[in-house]
Amino acid sequence: MIRFSWIIVLLLGCFSPGGSVVAADPTWREVDPDNLVFIDLTEGEVVIELNPLFAPKTVAQFRKLVQDKFYDGLSFYRVIDGFVAQGGDGSDLGELSLVPLIDAEFEIEMTEDIAFTLVQKQDLFADETGLVGGFAAARDLADNTLWLTHCPGVVAMARNDSPDSNRTDFYFVIGQAPRYLDRNMNVFARVVEGMDVVQRIRRGPVNENGIFQDDTSSSRIRRMRLASDIPKEERMAAFVVDTSSKGFEQLLKSRRDRKQKFFHHKPPRVLDVCQVPIASRTTK
Amino acid sequence: MIRFSWIIVLLLGCFSPGGSVVAADPTWREVDPDNLVFIDLTEGEVVIELNPLFAPKTVAQFRKLVQDKFYDGLSFYRVIDGFVAQGGDGSDLGELSLVPLIDAEFEIEMTEDIAFTLVQKQDLFADETGLVGGFAAARDLADNTLWLTHCPGVVAMARNDSPDSNRTDFYFVIGQAPRYLDRNMNVFARVVEGMDVVQRIRRGPVNENGIFQDDTSSSRIRRMRLASDIPKEERMAAFVVDTSSKGFEQLLKSRRDRKQKFFHHKPPRVLDVCQVPIASRTTK
Repeated sequence: MIRFSWIIVLLLGCFSPGGSVVAADPTWREVDPDNLVFIDLTEGEVVIELNPLFAPKTVAQFRKLVQDKFYDGLSFYRVIDGFVAQGGDGSDLGELSLVPLIDAEFEIEMTEDIAFTLVQKQDLFADETGLVGGFAAARDLADNTLWLTHCPGVVAMARNDSPDSNRTDFYFVIGQAPRYLDRNMNVFARVVEGMDVVQRIRRGPVNENGIFQDDTSSSRIRRMRLASDIPKEERMAAFVVDTSSKGFEQLLKSRRDRKQKFFHHKPPRVLDVCQVPIASRTTK
Repeated sequence: MIRFSWIIVLLLGCFSPGGSVVAADPTWREVDPDNLVFIDLTEGEVVIELNPLFAPKTVAQFRKLVQDKFYDGLSFYRVIDGFVAQGGDGSDLGELSLVPLIDAEFEIEMTEDIAFTLVQKQDLFADETGLVGGFAAARDLADNTLWLTHCPGVVAMARNDSPDSNRTDFYFVIGQAPRYLDRNMNVFARVVEGMDVVQRIRRGPVNENGIFQDDTSSSRIRRMRLASDIPKEERMAAFVVDTSSKGFEQLLKSRRDRKQKFFHHKPPRVLDVCQVPIASRTTK
């Protein structure tokens, strides 16, 4: 399956079906199988990419939990439409858990070896937004920090008031980017395939803050597997567009400066980092 | 069903389940039954509110099409995850249609009688964003115009290159706000209830720009009904939080200035107009 629909949309103008489709020829990066996790839900399969650069401790523990089959059979017990789908063992709600707590991994230092593709200066929430290895990120220029932004499809650890209370429960962002959470959560992964499946996760009761009182009606994690634990010939490979490539820079440029006659009112030359499509494809 | 989950989330801090729940006591506005449409999909029921202030001609024609049962049985033939779910008779793709074309209704003049609740000055895409009767909107101060912004849950007319080529096909926004479409489309309604249902609409093939080649696998509109055409004692009433009320101003203030100890890093005092929860409730 190749996901470049938005690129085509871009080339065609927006809703206009006319015109010829120019094939996009992006540079692809294969996702490291050690960072690739397959999540089988009742609703279908979701593929996520872990990000050890931004959240090394969280990723190491999550990987181990996946390998221990910790998440298999657990449910999405708090799901708020337009906001988050949260799953795990419920330790975030006070359920007893023996899994160690992880410290805050909210931001990292921006260093020269990090390829940051600028998307927008003076974004509403940060000095600069950009992309780092396909992940939406933002920078504070004064204190030279860099963090992953809360865009739809982001995966992060739930926690209590303590910044160091991350454990097993995680959430998918399923609505308009809640950017006010940026620099406050351990963002450690993003959905590479299957966001439509994530969107089918059953919502909890709205007057109970999305928390299911009856566990039997919630969506369930059937199984999680780390790609590198599956024999190579049996596993899916995932590729994500190289967001530091020239082709991708070109895509950003054309989205920033829309020349199609479809646009009666020319949009401002700005980009929302959470609204830039990151093409991906998987092969079996 | 009362939808004030986000308000509770706000009062509790973000993911922290502790603390006491202070009941929100918003002022409600009943949606005019002439502007209330029930859309029965294969996936469940969606309730939308029409907006004749911003798109009078589009609303008048849509209302008539609903009353004529025009949409009953039609499908969502173009669905792109994270972007839009487009349904109708396919006239936007060139199918013959006898329904009249509607002119552009992209923006209106800002006048004193319009209650505009300011959300954010110098939003990335506009001079000001705000809310008008529960709808997210934006303003251009130089030319004194006002328009509805493309937030998740917005309903707008699809069109071809001509700004005046609006007809029957419409789309729901189902992902991160595509604000670059603002002032370019006839936005005429928004989802009041059932956004989770909208999110279950079946996605089209990604390498076909979301267009189903096989009509049998797409999601279908079973029926649309205008509330005012249903006897009062049989119909659902819908209420939306009064976004020009003091209580709502208070909600905006507390979201802008987050004091909860949960926020280890205090978020910038800004608001994304598409990420402000608009509470609604329905009664039967």
